[in-house]
Amino acid sequence: MKSINLLELSQQLTEYWSPRIVGRVNDQFIKVAKLKGEFCWHAHELEDEMFLVLKGELTIQFEHEEIHLREGDSFVVVRGVRHNPKCENECLVALIEPVSTKHTGDVTTPLTKSIEQQLLKSS
Amino acid sequence: MKSINLLELSQQLTEYWSPRIVGRVNDQFIKVAKLKGEFCWHAHELEDEMFLVLKGELTIQFEHEEIHLREGDSFVVVRGVRHNPKCENECLVALIEPVSTKHTGDVTTPLTKSIEQQLLKSS
Repeated sequence: MKSINLLELSQQLTEYWSPRIVGRVNDQFIKVAKLKGEFCWHAHELEDEMFLVLKGELTIQFEHEEIHLREGDSFVVVRGVRHNPKCENECLVALIEPVSTKHTGDVTTPLTKSIEQQLLKSS
Repeated sequence: MKSINLLELSQQLTEYWSPRIVGRVNDQFIKVAKLKGEFCWHAHELEDEMFLVLKGELTIQFEHEEIHLREGDSFVVVRGVRHNPKCENECLVALIEPVSTKHTGDVTTPLTKSIEQQLLKSS
């Protein structure tokens, strides 16, 4: 029986935009990711995705507007909505999304990680 | 398009053990709750429940052991496992659980809140 500290876990993350799965709750994964720069435009056609900013600030760009998130802010990107997260400085986020979600959604980019690549290495 | 700050939201919570829904991701609710004292023994027969400690410390008691969580710690109580959270001092947690979950699980106590009682009042 073991808890996972999301803040400490961030020290294990060496790569930006590369989520790590910290737990499964029913049919959803909770992931942590360290972000810096800009991701890619994508959508998850059938799946909502929640962002919770643990450290730093994050902007999520949409086609006609954008939203700025800071520490403690939560935001749900509703299914089907095309979006592209970006941040000038490093930030740490928790993500909640279905186990079936591909983090780059309907596109494949050099940033795309498989679920296997998102598994936590046991320490 | 609006984000919800989980840390600021805690200032609206006047009652312990009374979760507020901050968002829905697919078939799960994200809730925030301020806790102090001891809750009640219960289980969710078919539903996992994730705790994420945002502030303070929380102990989750199980029938034969307990786990201590501190800020940033996440822990999934697996479906069917009888548990009872407690904390000597006030703590703030995020909860992720199916929209169908009753927060007191299979028991009804004076602490039991309906989903309607868990809705955020618009400010």
